Amino acid sequence: MAGQVLDGKACAQQFRSNIANEIKSIQGHVPGFAPNLAIIQVGNRPDSATYVRMKRKAAEEAGIVANFIHLDESATEFEVLRYVDQLNEDPHTHGIIVQLPLPAHLDEDRITSRVLAEKDVDGFGPTNIGELNKKNGHPFFLPCTPKGIIELLHKANVTIEGSRSVVIGRSDIVGSPVAELLKSLNSTVTITHSKTRDIASYLHDADIVVVAIGQPEFVKGEWFKPRDGTSSDKKTVVIDVGTNYVADPSKKSGFKCVGDVEFNEAIKYVHLITPVPGGVGPMTVAMLMQNTLIAAKRQMEESSKPLQIPPLPLKLLTPVPSDIDISRAQQPKLINQLAQELGIYSHELELYGHYKAKISPKVIERLQTRQNGKYILVSGITPTPLGEGKSTTTMGLVQALTAHLGKPAIANVRQPSLGPTLGVKGGAAGGGYSQVIPMDEFNLHLTGDIHAIGAANNLLAAAIDTRMFHETTQKNDATFYNRLVPRKNGKRKFTPSMQRRLNRLGIQKTNPDDLTPEEINKFARLNIDPDTITIKRVVDINDRMLRQITIGQAPTEKNHTRVTGFDITVASELMAILALSKDLRDMKERIGRVVVAADVNRSPVTVEDVGCTGALTALLRDAIKPNLMQTLEGTPVLVHAGPFANISIGASSVIADRVALKLVGTEPEAKTEAGYVVTEAGFDFTMGGERFFNIKCRSSGLTPNAVVLVATVRALKSHGGAPDVKPGQPLPSAYTEENIEFVEKGAANMCKQIANIKQFGVPVVVAINKFETDTEGEIAAIRKAALEAGAFEAVTSNHWAEGGKGAIDLAKAVIEASNQPVDFHFLYDVNSSVEDKLTTIVQKMYGGAAIDILPEAQRKIDMYKEQGFGNLPICIAKTQYSLSHDATLKGVPTGFTFPIRDVRLSNGAGYLYALAAEIQTIPGLATYAGYMAVEVDDDGEIDGLF
Amino acid sequence: MAGQVLDGKACAQQFRSNIANEIKSIQGHVPGFAPNLAIIQVGNRPDSATYVRMKRKAAEEAGIVANFIHLDESATEFEVLRYVDQLNEDPHTHGIIVQLPLPAHLDEDRITSRVLAEKDVDGFGPTNIGELNKKNGHPFFLPCTPKGIIELLHKANVTIEGSRSVVIGRSDIVGSPVAELLKSLNSTVTITHSKTRDIASYLHDADIVVVAIGQPEFVKGEWFKPRDGTSSDKKTVVIDVGTNYVADPSKKSGFKCVGDVEFNEAIKYVHLITPVPGGVGPMTVAMLMQNTLIAAKRQMEESSKPLQIPPLPLKLLTPVPSDIDISRAQQPKLINQLAQELGIYSHELELYGHYKAKISPKVIERLQTRQNGKYILVSGITPTPLGEGKSTTTMGLVQALTAHLGKPAIANVRQPSLGPTLGVKGGAAGGGYSQVIPMDEFNLHLTGDIHAIGAANNLLAAAIDTRMFHETTQKNDATFYNRLVPRKNGKRKFTPSMQRRLNRLGIQKTNPDDLTPEEINKFARLNIDPDTITIKRVVDINDRMLRQITIGQAPTEKNHTRVTGFDITVASELMAILALSKDLRDMKERIGRVVVAADVNRSPVTVEDVGCTGALTALLRDAIKPNLMQTLEGTPVLVHAGPFANISIGASSVIADRVALKLVGTEPEAKTEAGYVVTEAGFDFTMGGERFFNIKCRSSGLTPNAVVLVATVRALKSHGGAPDVKPGQPLPSAYTEENIEFVEKGAANMCKQIANIKQFGVPVVVAINKFETDTEGEIAAIRKAALEAGAFEAVTSNHWAEGGKGAIDLAKAVIEASNQPVDFHFLYDVNSSVEDKLTTIVQKMYGGAAIDILPEAQRKIDMYKEQGFGNLPICIAKTQYSLSHDATLKGVPTGFTFPIRDVRLSNGAGYLYALAAEIQTIPGLATYAGYMAVEVDDDGEIDGLF
Repeated sequence: MAGQVLDGKACAQQFRSNIANEIKSIQGHVPGFAPNLAIIQVGNRPDSATYVRMKRKAAEEAGIVANFIHLDESATEFEVLRYVDQLNEDPHTHGIIVQLPLPAHLDEDRITSRVLAEKDVDGFGPTNIGELNKKNGHPFFLPCTPKGIIELLHKANVTIEGSRSVVIGRSDIVGSPVAELLKSLNSTVTITHSKTRDIASYLHDADIVVVAIGQPEFVKGEWFKPRDGTSSDKKTVVIDVGTNYVADPSKKSGFKCVGDVEFNEAIKYVHLITPVPGGVGPMTVAMLMQNTLIAAKRQMEESSKPLQIPPLPLKLLTPVPSDIDISRAQQPKLINQLAQELGIYSHELELYGHYKAKISPKVIERLQTRQNGKYILVSGITPTPLGEGKSTTTMGLVQALTAHLGKPAIANVRQPSLGPTLGVKGGAAGGGYSQVIPMDEFNLHLTGDIHAIGAANNLLAAAIDTRMFHETTQKNDATFYNRLVPRKNGKRKFTPSMQRRLNRLGIQKTNPDDLTPEEINKFARLNIDPDTITIKRVVDINDRMLRQITIGQAPTEKNHTRVTGFDITVASELMAILALSKDLRDMKERIGRVVVAADVNRSPVTVEDVGCTGALTALLRDAIKPNLMQTLEGTPVLVHAGPFANISIGASSVIADRVALKLVGTEPEAKTEAGYVVTEAGFDFTMGGERFFNIKCRSSGLTPNAVVLVATVRALKSHGGAPDVKPGQPLPSAYTEENIEFVEKGAANMCKQIANIKQFGVPVVVAINKFETDTEGEIAAIRKAALEAGAFEAVTSNHWAEGGKGAIDLAKAVIEASNQPVDFHFLYDVNSSVEDKLTTIVQKMYGGAAIDILPEAQRKIDMYKEQGFGNLPICIAKTQYSLSHDATLKGVPTGFTFPIRDVRLSNGAGYLYALAAEIQTIPGLATYAGYMAVEVDDDGEIDGLF
Repeated sequence: MAGQVLDGKACAQQFRSNIANEIKSIQGHVPGFAPNLAIIQVGNRPDSATYVRMKRKAAEEAGIVANFIHLDESATEFEVLRYVDQLNEDPHTHGIIVQLPLPAHLDEDRITSRVLAEKDVDGFGPTNIGELNKKNGHPFFLPCTPKGIIELLHKANVTIEGSRSVVIGRSDIVGSPVAELLKSLNSTVTITHSKTRDIASYLHDADIVVVAIGQPEFVKGEWFKPRDGTSSDKKTVVIDVGTNYVADPSKKSGFKCVGDVEFNEAIKYVHLITPVPGGVGPMTVAMLMQNTLIAAKRQMEESSKPLQIPPLPLKLLTPVPSDIDISRAQQPKLINQLAQELGIYSHELELYGHYKAKISPKVIERLQTRQNGKYILVSGITPTPLGEGKSTTTMGLVQALTAHLGKPAIANVRQPSLGPTLGVKGGAAGGGYSQVIPMDEFNLHLTGDIHAIGAANNLLAAAIDTRMFHETTQKNDATFYNRLVPRKNGKRKFTPSMQRRLNRLGIQKTNPDDLTPEEINKFARLNIDPDTITIKRVVDINDRMLRQITIGQAPTEKNHTRVTGFDITVASELMAILALSKDLRDMKERIGRVVVAADVNRSPVTVEDVGCTGALTALLRDAIKPNLMQTLEGTPVLVHAGPFANISIGASSVIADRVALKLVGTEPEAKTEAGYVVTEAGFDFTMGGERFFNIKCRSSGLTPNAVVLVATVRALKSHGGAPDVKPGQPLPSAYTEENIEFVEKGAANMCKQIANIKQFGVPVVVAINKFETDTEGEIAAIRKAALEAGAFEAVTSNHWAEGGKGAIDLAKAVIEASNQPVDFHFLYDVNSSVEDKLTTIVQKMYGGAAIDILPEAQRKIDMYKEQGFGNLPICIAKTQYSLSHDATLKGVPTGFTFPIRDVRLSNGAGYLYALAAEIQTIPGLATYAGYMAVEVDDDGEIDGLF
């Protein structure tokens, strides 16, 4: 009785149509689902072209996007690998195949091995083959031909388990893997090959025979005849993988296609046999499509899974060692591992050593379909010399959320300035068992962002002064213009910034030689009024001697002296811009808008006018990328920007917040819970929080879900009237012994802060940062006051001594609070008058009665209004030690009149700032300063840094 | 006829003894050869302990170091992986095995997969198994048990090719890999297993049977009986892998060990059979030793192979585009790939983004047995406004050496300052098709080293001024001392730097409260004389207005004003120290020695006295690591330090040279040729080269093998009397048309430089940097003059337009020259008097007749001699545009008297510098400056930078 034909073509057709249906069905609930197969072909071999055509056609039928990348025969290995790398990283590409054979100058193995295992839909990469060859391995994909063979056997209801199978041929792409598959399905497999003696002898008993030896009709039909004397009811199934072209003059093409088996004879003795063509070939292509679909589905699942951030174990010691000792005792994760845990691709990451990295803000674009995570602001009560521990609380909270409650959470903090780090004990790494590590790298240089700001600011300052010098020393317009727009190699042209300035001046000319003398004067002379220059030079060191200086005293400067000064770098407008920019383009535009001075006609002169926008942006091109570090428990921290808390917003950057909120965000179709971004703002809520909402959130469009208000028993006692604390002297006993009265009295400050937060419509959790001497009665008093004042919850937190474990209660309260509805609104309308905005802040936040604008300040307000800067939000610089302008007024002063001594413009940053007092914008070093204790051993280990 | 026993124990013994002999034999010519096997065990399983003991014993017998790492049962995955990572990176470890099973909380697969394939002597990692399963794969190691089985078969002269073999059991560690090995040796293999029906039916015909099913005496002896009716001369070989413990009351231990085969029965029917115990077991352990030896030998070979640095292809365009366009058109290698090509381990590398990395100077220690590569200095003739192209030649030369001649070569260059980069067209990235890429990253910030120096210098300056301020404002010693050594939390202690100062002062006390009033005065008061302060503040911007300033004018500074100024950062002594330090410790000591001022008694006050050594070193801890980048052709470049060429050495760092010379060096036993390190020194040979030899080489102990002297036809014409070139005006025709007379006359300058180089005993190659208008006659004239002056060779080089290809002739000449004997000697003895050293340099290098020391300079010389600084080498600061002190004297002036106007001390850097003229240490910005053309697009691409 003749055998039957096993029809691969029909089977493949059915697979393709099933795939198409499944894709459509998924698209029903995930509209963006689009399986995408990249096919790289190098050169122009006709056979390769045929195969690629078949694959593209099959993809189209199956509803899969085929991304065909056709490279020139001469492409170098480096170029091919670059394409592979790009496709590996491209989230829209699910499968990648490199059409073989490649031109002889390319290393096939190196190139195919470069394809990520998760995208290796051919199944031949080292990981997938390795897993296939493991007994209980988990390959991402099975190689297409072997997989197609098994599917055909299944289709024909062939029993594989317990069968005897013979594989003829031991190639890497068919023979060996199909034998592995059969073995894994519990067949007993014999692999025969060119060196096997008497192959026929193995076939008589075989149930399944796979032939892949690449020789036309090598296997004779009669080999399948039952052995003499054995029964003839053997039901052998033959899979013929061969595709051999042999001469056939009867065909129009001159050749015909035959398999490795003598089909017409074999079919007489076997139960089932695949034809050639129409057998295994179409199945191979169909399996490629199925693998692509599998890849796309897996990626969809992966991207909707919650992030997995395994914590680093903490070994808590008592008494708690110094911050640097704790930091050094912990071996951090390699930062690329943490980035991977956060789902950041390697091309989005720039490593800076082993423990710091910059993240490309392009992450925001890639994850644009995600809903943001929860946004938590950590703020504090009015500061006291005792310290409240906002940074430590921020770190403890994220450590608790991620390492102890399994919720993805990112802490977003500012980069510390070297000034305080080397001046007084400071830094913002947190402390104890809640800090950023390695703390020395965090505190010194980080990735150089502050230095980049310093360089940019000082280029601007030099450009302004030098421009004035040249304008003054070259009295003749023509000579000056010739130097400003010089001829080079005979050619003369405007730089792009000059061209933009001409356009602003209404001069529509592009040839420098075409300007009239009037136009030259208008264009070339900035006529800066030296008394109006607002840009000071900066240095990131506490150098008090530079507060006020006279420059230009060298003979070469020809008596063009000027009184000016230095600020600390973090006080510069560029730092505020870095913190408030939404992206690189926004930063560039803000830099261009910075008003550096007025000209002799009181018109504003901008960075664009000085021609510095591009150079400043170039110097800050890397600084705009947030820096990834980690907490002591290996959870992620973004460190970015660090604007001064006195005269600026004192918060980390909008870009870092946007990146972090997307990283812990969720895809709309995902069922998982969003993660948390915890950030902080300098000083108390009334200063830092108010600016955070009215300036930073207004700029970013982001809305917090909850505010954590940090308080301590000691600080509240200080507000409640406990004796003053003096450096170097023992703490008065009022602080170390129970005193509920001081606590209750001081809690008024906390309650005012709670009320202030509630004015913005956001829920408040009070975190009582625990000290050993706190008593239950004191804590109960705080909690009672907080709840009465409208806090959502008030809990103690012991993260300094215990890390995240100590902040679990706080974390739980924050999770609950952030699920409350938010009714967010700004405190004031930016379009109200400057005076009204000032009054609103003073009355609603500070509790003052009225404002008193001094004449000099009023003159500036009028000028800014006239120049069109009247509708900016306002940052008020005042003492941080009181709700009022008077540092000696603790608790909750009321009824005071708040003085406005000066108003200044930060047009690039996008706000006016009003000064209630003389604010020191560069600190000094004390007689004993932090730098004196710092030592470095021969291995580069730093000691004495706190 | 009964079969024979195949004795694995004896065979294993022989293997171990062969291994021991081979190791001894290798140690005969490579004494350091010490194969080292790391064994990681986690927890205390008794069976694991037994296996580990056996392995350690076998290692000892074989002469292999067994490094046993025993971790606690509770070790986390993170900790175990850290050990694996360290061993992976440790060059002394050749093999790593993780004893299985691991405690349940650890992921075995993730941990074993982490072992580098090159050290995976167990052979079960993904790469080795993957390669084993490939038809023509190249595993580093075969798994030990399967390998031992094959060795046993070889030993017994069993023919494998063409045989029929049956493997019983399909485990990952025996069955499957042994089947693969047998298959690869051309046996026809059937794998049977638990689901196989009638295993016995497969055995009748088998030549080789491997049993590894893990069931005591599962295989019955009679299964080997020949099939009925077949001949009985079958010679079956049985390998029994089973090790099963079964109860045996007759034994003292209560159990006996049996195999998977019924040995006593089977031996009746088979030809050969392994016993249990004493069969496969000992062979497994012996193979582990053999794999370790293989690993050690491979590593020895790898480390003595020449480096393979595949070049990036260049697509040359005509006309040559702008530097930044060329840089952007080339896709660089990822820098970790280049580092890998250089043999740098990943723990020695700190990435800074994708295209820059810092290299740990610890590489020098790791490669200490290597002989240094060849050391080539690129220098130039006396500069002209036309430029000679030293940096471009440096890049072209290394590109030619590596990308075109296959010789490893590293270019060592300085980091450019932002000042010139944003001021005038400058930078030191080379140009055209010979440059460092990405050039924007090279020119802006790099990895922040210059910023770090700026921060350190400015901390020092602030510390000095603030110290004086506090000393002056606190008149009372006791008050001042109390503030300098404050009480903290009741305790009071000296910082380490204070303690060192006390020791220097001869005060042997450690308790601050113990000092007498006299000691307090001596210790606490530095009494700096403000007029003697030598430390200026720095900024890395061309800010001419800061050349001379008055500081301290704010009211808070109480009239403590002082006239001082800023230098550009690269002119600071700290930059010179960075360039000249041998290692971190040396840098720290040099920083401590820097003399910042004299006290009122004319005694030097150092950085140590100010208490800044540790903090400054901490700020420079990363800056001391050289930066790796690449040329346009993907060959390595180290960028490090950038001291001013006028008042300092104008060369890159000693550390970078030491690292590079080791990286391209060779092991003493290696037969390969050493590679090349090409570095350059600022200005002409007479300035930069002289300091390179007399200061830098004296400090480093390194000796160059050849000097490349760069000249151009145009520059020689300028020296020969061709008309002056004026910016913005067309080049005079003397430069663009043939003029052999000018060339011949100007060649005298080149000849003087050649003579100067030869005074040091080093061979010279003249590189004629080619321009289109050069004629054959002009070039012939230069070559003739050069050879007559004693140059080893003089060749033209067209690297600017053609990259390395254009510098092949130059590279060949350099290779030959560097094979010449070197008779290196310094120009002067440092112990001769300051006056003699000055005279020697002026007469022997500059061609002057005498020196004229001005009184102010003489006074300083006398003071330095008195302070003990008289025997330092000397750096003379003079115009670079003439051999003399007079910029207008071109060619080869003679007979002049050279003025010494001032002498200054750089005690940390280790030299005195003498000024022949007023040297500007901070440049200014021109009316049109480079920054004006810089633009950044929304993707962060920078344009307009040159």
